[in-house]
Amino acid sequence: MKVIILGLGNFGAALAIRMTQLGHEVIGVDNDAHRVEEIKEKVTSTICMDARELHDLKYLPLDDADAVLVAIGEDFGASVLITAQLKQLGVSRLIARSMSGLHRTVLEAIGVSDIFSPELEMAESFALKMELKNVNNVYHISQDYKIVESAVPKLMVNKPLSGIDFAASYDLNLIAVKRSEKVRNLIGMASTEQRLHSKLGPEFILLEGDVLVLAGSVDALKHLYAVL
Amino acid sequence: MKVIILGLGNFGAALAIRMTQLGHEVIGVDNDAHRVEEIKEKVTSTICMDARELHDLKYLPLDDADAVLVAIGEDFGASVLITAQLKQLGVSRLIARSMSGLHRTVLEAIGVSDIFSPELEMAESFALKMELKNVNNVYHISQDYKIVESAVPKLMVNKPLSGIDFAASYDLNLIAVKRSEKVRNLIGMASTEQRLHSKLGPEFILLEGDVLVLAGSVDALKHLYAVL
Repeated sequence: MKVIILGLGNFGAALAIRMTQLGHEVIGVDNDAHRVEEIKEKVTSTICMDARELHDLKYLPLDDADAVLVAIGEDFGASVLITAQLKQLGVSRLIARSMSGLHRTVLEAIGVSDIFSPELEMAESFALKMELKNVNNVYHISQDYKIVESAVPKLMVNKPLSGIDFAASYDLNLIAVKRSEKVRNLIGMASTEQRLHSKLGPEFILLEGDVLVLAGSVDALKHLYAVL
Repeated sequence: MKVIILGLGNFGAALAIRMTQLGHEVIGVDNDAHRVEEIKEKVTSTICMDARELHDLKYLPLDDADAVLVAIGEDFGASVLITAQLKQLGVSRLIARSMSGLHRTVLEAIGVSDIFSPELEMAESFALKMELKNVNNVYHISQDYKIVESAVPKLMVNKPLSGIDFAASYDLNLIAVKRSEKVRNLIGMASTEQRLHSKLGPEFILLEGDVLVLAGSVDALKHLYAVL
């Protein structure tokens, strides 16, 4: 697919590079020549322009794009101005990044339905991750319901799932198990890579070092880690 | 808990504010007085200092902190220097943000085991989100396995789960269903808030507007959206 990404900061640049790697046609746009220069080898094409200028904005192939993403993460005014102009130009699939509750509200008022807030989502997850010391990752489903990745508790090691019963004993839903394999990283250091097991029968045996992917209420998750 | 957050950019500031709201004691640190000024009413305490200076860094209550998080997102050198110094000072729970594969490798070499990459994770999720047009959110579990939030397909509306059988028909795991309720947002506009249903019996009936939380392989997810 063809995607235009406006704003090549940390997030916009990572997205432009990753989507290019996955075989998509990406046009990355920023008004900072340094940012454009830094990633231009890794992105299908890049343009250095001030997207706040309506005249310039019109030259982008907006009609051909499957999606236009405003990834600007610093300048509130530029984000809102550019998003409003894109809306006015009739962009069909417009996705915008919001930096705060008020920013989101303004974007909603403009009529953008596809809004994301990477910082707020990550902050939400991190707060819980810090509280639950055994948790590596938290995915925010709702205020009270999360999916976490966490180390297998010691007393569950070498036991089959039939003898644990996450649903009945802990009110949790075990979605998958990640198991580590040794590999070498970019500078030759030993590192681990994980393989995912998602077909979990009652005879599946948990091993030391396994990572559990669990879904449940915050209370149920806190309870599991409190009793172990 | 007591947390020190170094770097108050978009992510660090959002995290400091959210953790303060959740009742934690947060010390936010940045060398930019503007950033500190902007959020100081919303965070337990803030300090404007250059954390690259070892002398200044030592004055932070590192021993009392339950976690120290390096959230710097722009300056690679500052991130590595500060992280290495914190490691040397013996901080017990050190969490660092990486901006690239090489940055992660350097942090691993320093001995940091708790590393996160919000931009890379979000980029990974977004790439898939753009491909699957009905998907609102993607949680990255592994390269091939994702959890998504997506609108309920039309042909499943008003049907009980017993008549759909996600596991057998689509090789997917239905984790929860989000159902919308109307509320008013910050500037009084009508908006929707979602309630989560995670106890899903075979008699549970899907309604129009429901959002499904589904886990499965990328292929199985693509297949579901291709056939619908």
